[in-house]
Amino acid sequence: HEDSFVEKIVSHLREKTSNTQDMRKLIHSAKVGAALVLISFLYLLDPLYNQVGDNAMWAVMTVVVMFDFYAGATLGKGLNRGIGTILGGGLGCLVAYLAQQVGGIGNSVIITSSVFIFGAGATYTRTVPRIKKRYDYGAMIFILTFNLVVVSGMRAEKVLEIARERLSTVGMGLAVCVFVSLMVFPIWASDELHDSTSSNFINLANSLQGCMEDYFRLVSEKETEPSATSFTSCKSVLNSKAKDELLANFAKWEPWHGKYGLYHPWEQYLKIGELLRELAASLISLKHSHVSHEAINQRAMRISGVFSSVEPQRAWGQHKEDEEM
Amino acid sequence: HEDSFVEKIVSHLREKTSNTQDMRKLIHSAKVGAALVLISFLYLLDPLYNQVGDNAMWAVMTVVVMFDFYAGATLGKGLNRGIGTILGGGLGCLVAYLAQQVGGIGNSVIITSSVFIFGAGATYTRTVPRIKKRYDYGAMIFILTFNLVVVSGMRAEKVLEIARERLSTVGMGLAVCVFVSLMVFPIWASDELHDSTSSNFINLANSLQGCMEDYFRLVSEKETEPSATSFTSCKSVLNSKAKDELLANFAKWEPWHGKYGLYHPWEQYLKIGELLRELAASLISLKHSHVSHEAINQRAMRISGVFSSVEPQRAWGQHKEDEEM
Repeated sequence: HEDSFVEKIVSHLREKTSNTQDMRKLIHSAKVGAALVLISFLYLLDPLYNQVGDNAMWAVMTVVVMFDFYAGATLGKGLNRGIGTILGGGLGCLVAYLAQQVGGIGNSVIITSSVFIFGAGATYTRTVPRIKKRYDYGAMIFILTFNLVVVSGMRAEKVLEIARERLSTVGMGLAVCVFVSLMVFPIWASDELHDSTSSNFINLANSLQGCMEDYFRLVSEKETEPSATSFTSCKSVLNSKAKDELLANFAKWEPWHGKYGLYHPWEQYLKIGELLRELAASLISLKHSHVSHEAINQRAMRISGVFSSVEPQRAWGQHKEDEEM
Repeated sequence: HEDSFVEKIVSHLREKTSNTQDMRKLIHSAKVGAALVLISFLYLLDPLYNQVGDNAMWAVMTVVVMFDFYAGATLGKGLNRGIGTILGGGLGCLVAYLAQQVGGIGNSVIITSSVFIFGAGATYTRTVPRIKKRYDYGAMIFILTFNLVVVSGMRAEKVLEIARERLSTVGMGLAVCVFVSLMVFPIWASDELHDSTSSNFINLANSLQGCMEDYFRLVSEKETEPSATSFTSCKSVLNSKAKDELLANFAKWEPWHGKYGLYHPWEQYLKIGELLRELAASLISLKHSHVSHEAINQRAMRISGVFSSVEPQRAWGQHKEDEEM
């Protein structure tokens, strides 16, 4: 029974590997599994566990949250996490130290008000579109670290010690993520953006050609078989904006690799995408106007047909009227 | 000096509150700050801290990660987090118990292989579009909880105790989030989706009317002032797909409120949006064809003008030729 289940999975996997997109998903899944195994050695091997202790938890968390499909997304999240942790931790230590100096009721007041002010302030920056686009994750990590450091600073004696240990384990998690993501079968957002832009060009060209062929076909042919051109590719181009922007955003984080240099003009891809979407819109309405044109012609023919069949009727009616007169 | 800084912020805030969108962002920020203050009482008040101890960290983390702009997004994340934590924790306890029964080297082998298998498997389900759309966050939390429970199960004696404590603090964080998000000035994704759909209708109607007015204006008027119709609203409608889908996704999580019942047909909004995008595409190309039509007319007029000015020239040239002959 179990054998047949395993066989099923294997045959399913074999089927999937024939498709490039599915192949990449499988590779990504295996990479995440491998990164998790690597980081769980912090718990499994005694010498490592004696070093980090329960803080190993933070390394596991970093890997789970950070590992993304594209190498650029992983790198971007990693940088955001690093900067957010350092800024939040530093500011948290400072506020905790100030509160300890004041002492008494002032301690609680300072901590509560700083939690509110920094929490609300950082959340407001997250709603600004430009910051949201690239630094949303960093702002979230800043709020998280700041809060944890400030409020646990009240209870724990050695805030700096805790901060240092957590920072080092987060660093380990980052290192494992970056290593596995970039070194083992990396999946680049830049390749994806380049390929999708070029395939959009090809799809639109095919649609345009199909449109012209439709237009210049003989009328008799048109009646026997309807238009063969499919406009699904045009529609998918129309809706490509969000995905393109995401990919360009990831691609900017990616280092020099393959044919793409460090300052590859990713903004240009977005401009080309904008123009391609306009072209797709024109193509779709070209198609519509072509179809409606035909419909008008056909209706006109049908109407004239009706008229020619009505004519004798009216003549007959007149004839009758003549008789009644 | 400080006074002027505060005054600047206050005047900036006063300016912002006049705009509804900015007002909502400010309210959201204040709500996040309030939720953080509420949850930090777990550290600040002794009776509460004695109950939960350092596990209060999980409550803070839950609030920071979960609190989203729209009530529906917060609820959706909360349900995902709850289900993911329970499933991951339960499965993790089971595997940890199995591994402890086997003992020795088998222990490490079982833990390592289960980390790989469940990590890779859950990551693969995250790449399936339908699951990614609604349960992406839940799958991530499942991986996180499963890993933490399994690997720390090797070290900690009381896995169940840890799981129970964390679950209760995560529950507290969830409760605070849901309370603040839904009870204090809730920002509903359903309202946003409804309003954006209706404003899309109005924008397109205005564009269409502008287009017709342009078409039927006198030629003399057209020459003095260029077309006043702006098509930016059409373009923004064209690119509305991603945002609409996100909002509909959040709206589905939202409970009965205002004029929206429990099973409000959010899918229909997406269909309407699809048709509006097609209409926007047609309008843009209508505008283009109108402009290019005018351009052709003008070019024709200019060419005929050139010809009429060329004519005497040619006559004069011929005259000269005549002289030379």
